[in-house]
Amino acid sequence: MKPNISIITIAVADLERALVFYRDGLGLQTEGIFGEEFEDGAVVFFNMNPGLILALWTRPALARDSNVPVDGPAVTEFSLAHNVGSRDEVDALMRQATAAGAHVTAPAHDTFYGGYAGYFQDPDGHLWEIAW
Amino acid sequence: MKPNISIITIAVADLERALVFYRDGLGLQTEGIFGEEFEDGAVVFFNMNPGLILALWTRPALARDSNVPVDGPAVTEFSLAHNVGSRDEVDALMRQATAAGAHVTAPAHDTFYGGYAGYFQDPDGHLWEIAW
Repeated sequence: MKPNISIITIAVADLERALVFYRDGLGLQTEGIFGEEFEDGAVVFFNMNPGLILALWTRPALARDSNVPVDGPAVTEFSLAHNVGSRDEVDALMRQATAAGAHVTAPAHDTFYGGYAGYFQDPDGHLWEIAW
Repeated sequence: MKPNISIITIAVADLERALVFYRDGLGLQTEGIFGEEFEDGAVVFFNMNPGLILALWTRPALARDSNVPVDGPAVTEFSLAHNVGSRDEVDALMRQATAAGAHVTAPAHDTFYGGYAGYFQDPDGHLWEIAW
């Protein structure tokens, strides 16, 4: 397997709510919801790192596509880390996420490895770590 | 927020089992488990796309670091997609994953959008889609 991830799909309960959080709250660019003409097609894509897309999709759609039962939500399945260049940028992004409706689980703090980081949850409970 | 994800951390029950699956089974390169000298430090990193690391970490460690209760496992929280260049590559990688102990939930099949894709679960139930 080549060391490549093409898409990270995160499962959401409400696609519009998640879109508003990521696009309007965090400021990620997207063309919005598309694919609504297909069953389970409605999806939101954000272009992230080169070759990497962050997708928002509903839990039932993911479950049907992958042929598993719907379960969750569960918080401790994964987290996404976003690194920034300074402590101030950590603080600013934690404030921005809070203003966007995120739930802060760990306010930014000094880490044992000499960094500075905090965690928040998106409206579906998914963990993001903002780290310097 | 800049459109960048630095690390995707996936939570596992058994770090050694997950390491064996991803390193020996799927063939991703890693220096193995390190950080065991720190509390909750034991982690496995794989360098993926430029600037993107796939990390394996235990669920309790992720929970403590992010200051949330341990819950899960739950299957339909997220999936990771790996795109390949041909149908044959999809089939080959699905076979490789199966041989490595993955559970195939959706054998490779033609998709409504004209592609060819299958899903498997890693030993912790996390979904991967292999797609052409």
